[in-house]
Amino acid sequence: MTELPISLDLIAERNAVHAEALEEDYAALGRKLSRTGIDIDAIKERVAGFSVAVPSWGAGRGGTRFAKFPIAGEPTNIHEKLEDCAVIQQLSRVTPRVSPHFPWDKVNDYKALREEAAALGLGWDAVNSNTFQDQVGQAHTYANGSLAAQDAATRQQAVDHNIECIEIGRQLGSTDLTVWVGDGTNFPGQQDLGRSLDRYLEAASKIYAALPDDWRMLLEHKMFEPAFYSTVISDWGSSILAAQELGPKAKCLVDLGHHAPNVNIEQIVARLHRFGKLGGFHFNDSKYGDDDLDSGSINPHQLFLVFNELVEAELNPRDGFNPSYMIDQSHNVTDPIESMLSSAETITQCFAKAQLVDREALHAAQEANDTMMAFQALRRAYNVDVAPILAKARVEAGGAIDVLEAYRLSQYRSRKAQERKAVGLGAGIV
Amino acid sequence: MTELPISLDLIAERNAVHAEALEEDYAALGRKLSRTGIDIDAIKERVAGFSVAVPSWGAGRGGTRFAKFPIAGEPTNIHEKLEDCAVIQQLSRVTPRVSPHFPWDKVNDYKALREEAAALGLGWDAVNSNTFQDQVGQAHTYANGSLAAQDAATRQQAVDHNIECIEIGRQLGSTDLTVWVGDGTNFPGQQDLGRSLDRYLEAASKIYAALPDDWRMLLEHKMFEPAFYSTVISDWGSSILAAQELGPKAKCLVDLGHHAPNVNIEQIVARLHRFGKLGGFHFNDSKYGDDDLDSGSINPHQLFLVFNELVEAELNPRDGFNPSYMIDQSHNVTDPIESMLSSAETITQCFAKAQLVDREALHAAQEANDTMMAFQALRRAYNVDVAPILAKARVEAGGAIDVLEAYRLSQYRSRKAQERKAVGLGAGIV
Amino acid sequence: MTELPISLDLIAERNAVHAEALEEDYAALGRKLSRTGIDIDAIKERVAGFSVAVPSWGAGRGGTRFAKFPIAGEPTNIHEKLEDCAVIQQLSRVTPRVSPHFPWDKVNDYKALREEAAALGLGWDAVNSNTFQDQVGQAHTYANGSLAAQDAATRQQAVDHNIECIEIGRQLGSTDLTVWVGDGTNFPGQQDLGRSLDRYLEAASKIYAALPDDWRMLLEHKMFEPAFYSTVISDWGSSILAAQELGPKAKCLVDLGHHAPNVNIEQIVARLHRFGKLGGFHFNDSKYGDDDLDSGSINPHQLFLVFNELVEAELNPRDGFNPSYMIDQSHNVTDPIESMLSSAETITQCFAKAQLVDREALHAAQEANDTMMAFQALRRAYNVDVAPILAKARVEAGGAIDVLEAYRLSQYRSRKAQERKAVGLGAGIV
Amino acid sequence: MTELPISLDLIAERNAVHAEALEEDYAALGRKLSRTGIDIDAIKERVAGFSVAVPSWGAGRGGTRFAKFPIAGEPTNIHEKLEDCAVIQQLSRVTPRVSPHFPWDKVNDYKALREEAAALGLGWDAVNSNTFQDQVGQAHTYANGSLAAQDAATRQQAVDHNIECIEIGRQLGSTDLTVWVGDGTNFPGQQDLGRSLDRYLEAASKIYAALPDDWRMLLEHKMFEPAFYSTVISDWGSSILAAQELGPKAKCLVDLGHHAPNVNIEQIVARLHRFGKLGGFHFNDSKYGDDDLDSGSINPHQLFLVFNELVEAELNPRDGFNPSYMIDQSHNVTDPIESMLSSAETITQCFAKAQLVDREALHAAQEANDTMMAFQALRRAYNVDVAPILAKARVEAGGAIDVLEAYRLSQYRSRKAQERKAVGLGAGIV
Repeated sequence: MTELPISLDLIAERNAVHAEALEEDYAALGRKLSRTGIDIDAIKERVAGFSVAVPSWGAGRGGTRFAKFPIAGEPTNIHEKLEDCAVIQQLSRVTPRVSPHFPWDKVNDYKALREEAAALGLGWDAVNSNTFQDQVGQAHTYANGSLAAQDAATRQQAVDHNIECIEIGRQLGSTDLTVWVGDGTNFPGQQDLGRSLDRYLEAASKIYAALPDDWRMLLEHKMFEPAFYSTVISDWGSSILAAQELGPKAKCLVDLGHHAPNVNIEQIVARLHRFGKLGGFHFNDSKYGDDDLDSGSINPHQLFLVFNELVEAELNPRDGFNPSYMIDQSHNVTDPIESMLSSAETITQCFAKAQLVDREALHAAQEANDTMMAFQALRRAYNVDVAPILAKARVEAGGAIDVLEAYRLSQYRSRKAQERKAVGLGAGIV
Repeated sequence: MTELPISLDLIAERNAVHAEALEEDYAALGRKLSRTGIDIDAIKERVAGFSVAVPSWGAGRGGTRFAKFPIAGEPTNIHEKLEDCAVIQQLSRVTPRVSPHFPWDKVNDYKALREEAAALGLGWDAVNSNTFQDQVGQAHTYANGSLAAQDAATRQQAVDHNIECIEIGRQLGSTDLTVWVGDGTNFPGQQDLGRSLDRYLEAASKIYAALPDDWRMLLEHKMFEPAFYSTVISDWGSSILAAQELGPKAKCLVDLGHHAPNVNIEQIVARLHRFGKLGGFHFNDSKYGDDDLDSGSINPHQLFLVFNELVEAELNPRDGFNPSYMIDQSHNVTDPIESMLSSAETITQCFAKAQLVDREALHAAQEANDTMMAFQALRRAYNVDVAPILAKARVEAGGAIDVLEAYRLSQYRSRKAQERKAVGLGAGIV
Repeated sequence: MTELPISLDLIAERNAVHAEALEEDYAALGRKLSRTGIDIDAIKERVAGFSVAVPSWGAGRGGTRFAKFPIAGEPTNIHEKLEDCAVIQQLSRVTPRVSPHFPWDKVNDYKALREEAAALGLGWDAVNSNTFQDQVGQAHTYANGSLAAQDAATRQQAVDHNIECIEIGRQLGSTDLTVWVGDGTNFPGQQDLGRSLDRYLEAASKIYAALPDDWRMLLEHKMFEPAFYSTVISDWGSSILAAQELGPKAKCLVDLGHHAPNVNIEQIVARLHRFGKLGGFHFNDSKYGDDDLDSGSINPHQLFLVFNELVEAELNPRDGFNPSYMIDQSHNVTDPIESMLSSAETITQCFAKAQLVDREALHAAQEANDTMMAFQALRRAYNVDVAPILAKARVEAGGAIDVLEAYRLSQYRSRKAQERKAVGLGAGIV
Repeated sequence: MTELPISLDLIAERNAVHAEALEEDYAALGRKLSRTGIDIDAIKERVAGFSVAVPSWGAGRGGTRFAKFPIAGEPTNIHEKLEDCAVIQQLSRVTPRVSPHFPWDKVNDYKALREEAAALGLGWDAVNSNTFQDQVGQAHTYANGSLAAQDAATRQQAVDHNIECIEIGRQLGSTDLTVWVGDGTNFPGQQDLGRSLDRYLEAASKIYAALPDDWRMLLEHKMFEPAFYSTVISDWGSSILAAQELGPKAKCLVDLGHHAPNVNIEQIVARLHRFGKLGGFHFNDSKYGDDDLDSGSINPHQLFLVFNELVEAELNPRDGFNPSYMIDQSHNVTDPIESMLSSAETITQCFAKAQLVDREALHAAQEANDTMMAFQALRRAYNVDVAPILAKARVEAGGAIDVLEAYRLSQYRSRKAQERKAVGLGAGIV
């Protein structure tokens, strides 16, 4: 087995420093929770069972059309990205799977890649196709769309690429294909809004037909960007109707940053679940658009409310409950490893807080139209500082009590800065 | 037959004054259009066939939670409202139907009401139920919802009221029931987002079951107000899924002001049509929320783009094309008759401009990915000043060339101010 | 001295029940905070020094243009409202001042009113004028504006009313006049956007001239509602420029719900402070517009970030730091007393969390461009459950540990429902 | 003198084809306008006096962080960009100035560049600095900001660059420096919101001090992107306060896409004018964010309302009226020359329509609180199809009646595709 990237001694040493404080805080929280009938160890077990995937591309520094500012030691290929993801998993113990993106992560030998990941303690999550960019040597441009393109050969090329992604995913052990397309328009009239959806559905159904029996096709909607007047799968309504047309293996994926301003995302989660089409999440946060900021950095309460819906959905599964969780952020100003460590922590906190809601009290208040007490049932859980629960679960799984501290002390990035080749300036496109 | 409210002599006299200018402008526009192969008279005929309903309540002055400022001569009952609607229809000749709202427009004898309207040249459009307010003596409050209320008796009361509306509508000659509910929440947790929709669907299905064979049930979604955290039918996605569950007679109604900021409403129109659920429109305009401003007063181009989708839908009817059109505005600072005259004109202009689009050129450009020429095909039509076409159609149908001028010269409002009882101040609720 | 509305015995009895748990939680939090060098008692003292005013009108149930659903026992005059405010203060011990609104709270004898409040443990906060509604018998309508009205007599009437409010405020012991006007337009062209501001400034300067030396005039901006195309003081930019023109006693008041979607409100706070014009706050929360929801119920993190700016401002006072704090919510679906108890708690929590930020670490990280650690400095403070600190401060001041529990057990509302006259249905304006 | 890029014969030939139709339409419009007392030739003269600058970078294809799709024949240096701008000016006759961007447009000899432009019929508009990207070999990175950076050497580097831009601009004959910075944050706490503005102002004042007497410094605000939590000059309020601090030569520039959703931009124009700080415009359109779509393609009515404010401002100049006009768009899916031809036409149409407003009627209606007639005064002008006026002005100045037709027939782009070197794929940054 490959050596894990962070020294076990370092982790152990730092955990020893923090152990006493953790025990004290965990015990105090345990007493507090026990007063309302909650067993902290049971919550800790649920937290220990939670996980969220990280995207291979998230290991690199992100940017905007204006610029990308690289950092020393950035990964430039899937092997280096895997190593970085292994750091996140080693320290946090909640990110055991990596979601690859093709053709960005193409290699010659996927069996070897799967083994390489396994040696680092990593498995594989949903496979992501890319038909929003042209690759060198590509036969047909995606300048005018991909799955919804006017040109049949372009659509077929996009279908073929997605089917190739499924094939790669099978070799890696994935069971989900996530399909996000940039197709859309910048001008009224540019495309017929009805016929472009027809073309999308026709092409998507060819991909759907190639899905193995145990796979799902996750449709990811987005309101705007890169298209700025219309996008073919712009909202959850378009997404679920498309998923209905495609069939039972097609589900909807919710990226938290892909909605119109002010939209109630937790209700969208409830709606998708209600109609049997909740497929998964791309976690991030935003203030303005698809800002791809760190999960919960802007509105952690919204993230909690999403998890509250997920707990309700699990308790009331209707047509099943099996959402896929992934972080999807653009780390423009931080070390991507640090952002994913911090984000995984925040996501898990929201998961844990949602577990703490007194659902009996909540449902009783709802049934009695006791608005204030229903709200308080959520708010009391949200206000709990669950950090000790997460830290305890983490340390028991071999992770670090203070993940950022351990990472910084490891000097992982500066070591990589010496090993890895430098990344050039992102010139900006504007 | 009842005398129409505006003097025919006045209309004839003013039309005579404007006739020569209209002929000149109409001829000039005819020559211009003929250069691109368009027969202006054919367009005029299509305009002559267009109509949009007016809501009975729109005849009264609107207001906000802060205040309502009444005007002298406001109508205070359905009879006076009908008279005002008759003015709009007499002058504009595009608003031949009135949409009633119950219990606001309740009378003892609906047969007589139907005849009263007919004598004024008016028919009846969709019937609107009201379960967002409590009426004096009502058994169960809607404070906690109506069709989605927790309490079964409240839900049944709301169902019964809607069924009563259908019965009244049958007597009036309507064939549509529009259902908008204020149900929703102001706090996270106040209601379970999944179960509240279950309750809505169960109640709505009882109303649906009571629909006559030739009736439709139009579901009107709204993002927010009066509920400010969630609403049960908040967006077109919720609306169409509800309509699917209810059955083929359930369709979706688009109010232009009920969407999240920045949303592409014309694409929603295309989506609803694509999936066979486009039921109709409530026309108005807005800058911020459900401002209920005059149609096209803020963004006339958006209204044109909506009509462009409607023309495409009519040409490509898929599962049929029969949308219901109604004005739904809150006239807080104008004479409601003037606002509806102006709005009917703007709506008809957008309809006319959409007819002028060179669809062959548009579709050819779309197929060739010629974005600029596709856009120009729309823009050239939008830029045409179609006023002469509308005026010509109007005068041929007995209306006024300059509707606002004729209305003002008629002194209708000041006459009513002397006849009608005064309306009290709206105290404001805040 | 008047008897306080809630039984002291009840409070004492319930506090006794919770005392042990509070001591335990307070001690545990104290140990945790002490590890990072924070003295919990010092924080508790700062919390004990914090207060926020409540608005007299907030004691009544709110509503929308669609409906108002009253509750039994609602107050219908300033005396009953004062009694309700006394309940909030008695239990929470952070709301010692009431903000009155005229003419709603008019009485004949303000000296007596002041004494009545004092006997209930209440003082007076900013006086609010009302020129957005017409009152019966009013000489000039505000239908076309007040301070910015075209008509000079209307403007003078609005000026006179504000000066009368100052005079009343002097008798009550207030030192702030809050001026919010509904002036604006619903149509492009309705008013000249430049000249309407000229008129506003001319009228406002007359009010300014009547301010006593130790008074401030707080200008409250609002993006929209009741006007839906433009408002004369629509944003903080208009507000601060107006305050600059008026003079040093004019300051800007930030209502959290009066901004465009997505706007960074905490930065507005920083800007107003930077330029010497931060006057105060109306606390509430919103998801869509001026929803007037309970403070922190939708986005508690934003409220924390606002208080974080306030702590920074206090540490770096530039031209002074003396903001006025008030709750301003519309309690449409809850008992207003419960909402204000809950909101006062949430506001105080955010104040307390902002006190916990390790400012040295924050500033060091900012100076080092260490984005992640700067963010973590805020986030660690935000994550702390400060409830024990607030409860401890409250109980030491004579309040209740669990304010909602004590209120419910007191059966205050049901007692008032028997004593007070019923409020009629709000008919809705639409 | 350099030969102009489009054949004069081609233009003359096509104009001859369209001449008769233009005369007919112009005459008909003239008769129509004369009925309301407007002399069409006077309007045409005003249109002939109108112009708007084009940005050098706008001649290249734009893109997003996801991809850039180049087109054959794109310009790759300032010489080729000038040639493309010359096409736009030759055909449209309303874009006689080019706005350069440094270091993108750096050359060795600016005197020669000025002459090169002059030979193509082009002058120079505002100079744009670039401190939002790093250039190869740059001493200090802008990753953490430029004028507002924590690091003093970085700030000085940004100041020096701006001063160099002024120097280049003097050689070119410019008199404006436009300063837009990407400075801001992606995380709460990343920077102190007050101190970052202090640093910005300190650095900006050094640039201000280097301005020649007849120059202006145009501050361009932007709500978000590339920073997604806060930006240092985020809104017009920050912009005007900064301009006040800097001095009378500092003015505010309004980019139509840099605002929060729903914001009333025409009122911002009125406010900036009211307080003596209206400096100029970057014209474009948007539906969601800073979409940089073609001017007026999404909301032409808003553009008209902006020009309506400009006409009012010119009539009531207060502290002067001299705004700078520039197109600033990202041409992601069209030939940039076609987009700028179309956009210049749309902008000029809005200018022309604003000239047609019956201001006497508008002001009279405003003074009488006659909302409907005030609105109609604007709407009647907006509805006029002013194309004949623009075409007539254009042809008299040597331009083409149908600019897009002439451009396409010239085969300019395909000729350049053979001459110019190919542009590589924009890989996308994500």
